[in-house]
Amino acid sequence: MEAMLITHLPDVRYLCGFTGSNAALAVTAKSAAMFTDGRYTSQAKIETQGARVVIAEKSALREACAWLEKSGATRAYFDPEHTTFFSLEIMRDMLSKGKRRSFFQPLKKPAVSELRMVKDADELLLMEKAALLGCELFHAILPHIQAGVPEQEIAADLEFFARSLGAEGMSFETIVASGKRSAFPHGRASAAKVPARGFVTLDFGVILNGYCSDMTRTVHMGKPGQPEQFAYDAVLEAQEAAVAAVKPGATCGEVDEAARNVLRKAKLDKYFTHSTGHGVGVEIHEPPRVAKEQEQKLQPGMVITIEPGVYIDGKFGIRIEDMIAVTKSGGKILTPSPKALIQL
Amino acid sequence: MEAMLITHLPDVRYLCGFTGSNAALAVTAKSAAMFTDGRYTSQAKIETQGARVVIAEKSALREACAWLEKSGATRAYFDPEHTTFFSLEIMRDMLSKGKRRSFFQPLKKPAVSELRMVKDADELLLMEKAALLGCELFHAILPHIQAGVPEQEIAADLEFFARSLGAEGMSFETIVASGKRSAFPHGRASAAKVPARGFVTLDFGVILNGYCSDMTRTVHMGKPGQPEQFAYDAVLEAQEAAVAAVKPGATCGEVDEAARNVLRKAKLDKYFTHSTGHGVGVEIHEPPRVAKEQEQKLQPGMVITIEPGVYIDGKFGIRIEDMIAVTKSGGKILTPSPKALIQL
Repeated sequence: MEAMLITHLPDVRYLCGFTGSNAALAVTAKSAAMFTDGRYTSQAKIETQGARVVIAEKSALREACAWLEKSGATRAYFDPEHTTFFSLEIMRDMLSKGKRRSFFQPLKKPAVSELRMVKDADELLLMEKAALLGCELFHAILPHIQAGVPEQEIAADLEFFARSLGAEGMSFETIVASGKRSAFPHGRASAAKVPARGFVTLDFGVILNGYCSDMTRTVHMGKPGQPEQFAYDAVLEAQEAAVAAVKPGATCGEVDEAARNVLRKAKLDKYFTHSTGHGVGVEIHEPPRVAKEQEQKLQPGMVITIEPGVYIDGKFGIRIEDMIAVTKSGGKILTPSPKALIQL
Repeated sequence: MEAMLITHLPDVRYLCGFTGSNAALAVTAKSAAMFTDGRYTSQAKIETQGARVVIAEKSALREACAWLEKSGATRAYFDPEHTTFFSLEIMRDMLSKGKRRSFFQPLKKPAVSELRMVKDADELLLMEKAALLGCELFHAILPHIQAGVPEQEIAADLEFFARSLGAEGMSFETIVASGKRSAFPHGRASAAKVPARGFVTLDFGVILNGYCSDMTRTVHMGKPGQPEQFAYDAVLEAQEAAVAAVKPGATCGEVDEAARNVLRKAKLDKYFTHSTGHGVGVEIHEPPRVAKEQEQKLQPGMVITIEPGVYIDGKFGIRIEDMIAVTKSGGKILTPSPKALIQL
């Protein structure tokens, strides 16, 4: 009998519902047990489905390994992408001597990631709700984006609205990058003040019912100059071309190339320094990667971001991002906020 | 010549200042290089100190490994606690065949953790500021804790104040656990409403200048019953006993036992289901562990939490937590908010 040990917390949550910060889920063909610690005695009983809850005396991981050996399994697979060298030593250390060499084996393919990559109808509904909450926030925050306001204050307002509207939290550190800082693709909201003229990029997401949203809009304070408007139009065209390329059977690399090709024609591709997007779900970044040469094929039920950008060091940056659900007939935009350039 | 590869992001930040979400820092006796990707071209140059910045074409990790081999190092140590089985395969895969078996070796002891565990004067100042911001938030939030208010709304207000006062973010998901939910040691703020009578536990922290704060206070709505007051007094006495046990040379196990012993005398120790505390710094949880039988000795410059609690399933819970800096003469409380039971 084969078995599996799941320790990556989003996977544990996905498989059995437990949301605590310490967990090891052991599964055989016959039974399943979820190990955690005394902080979660009550919570684990309420949340966990499909597995027995065991409150470990000392170490959830160690007790899960001992349980797996006793279960009669001949082999247990672990997730090599989320198991550290140190954990593996602990896991092997818990086994009787004869089993140490071969009992634990790395999974040949990321089994839980592959399950998670394709969302079912219930999950799609939750993701749609999370994405729409994001759009609501974007509209609510617009009046707060004013020259002289620190980026951090805009982030504070946005996060307050998110919480007030029921979000459990933000899915990543809110990005508010204004003026020259818009050229930082990952410019966390800082003390810098929004300038009277220039771009402001907002990239943010909420966690709602355990699912993440992710969207980016770039607005302009005052009237954009000709190079700014040209670059914005190119990024928007690239974004729309990539969205249009989404369909079952298309590879992630083809979607990436659709965006990159538009920027190449506009001679802006060298300023597009990251990949086009990523999967999103229980985690803000999850498979598939929507990047150059990625052979992964899109399937109905996948949810990805499409977020090309252009970043000109010392001058400005622009990024436009939607969440897209792959359907039988193509890509469905989950974040329908307007994308034409908003001037504030 | 020996070398080291650092991939754990808080360690990278601690050692060279770079705060991005993708980094591999390679260090030999002669030079250092910090590898990241194109999203961080500008940011990495501004932030990184003491290492050359390399923008990787495809993979920061792979290029760091290739650089290490070319550097002339005969061996490179990696952090076994933060290197996954999968990463190690990639790392070895980048080497020429003869080196694959022995070039990468796990560190025998957690070198960077040990450096980080003892804070220097500059760091202590930053931690003190972060901790005091936490206290300010506690005082600001008290008027918002009212019967009928959802826990999530209290968390929203608290997080808004945090952002408004300059925090970069929260150091963990804010805990607001009211009424029976206070018996959940890790009760994230939910839609549950604060009852007219019962405990409300607030456990929260901010990130300020890259350093985390952490504190817990438990208040009571209305007048507590006799069992509630008795348990609160016992937890407070346990907390103060553990704080008093902090001094250079004391073991973490002794500090834990000081708290546990008070609760044992009050016959409440079986409801104290977690360890007494943990180190805090660039990360919210870092060494040392302040738990049963931990032999790690306290040293001046360490910053730990002391947070005993009592959780009676279906009834109520209480936790009181301070951040404590270890000084030559004992423990210095960094979170001086009052601990006598506040009735609201």
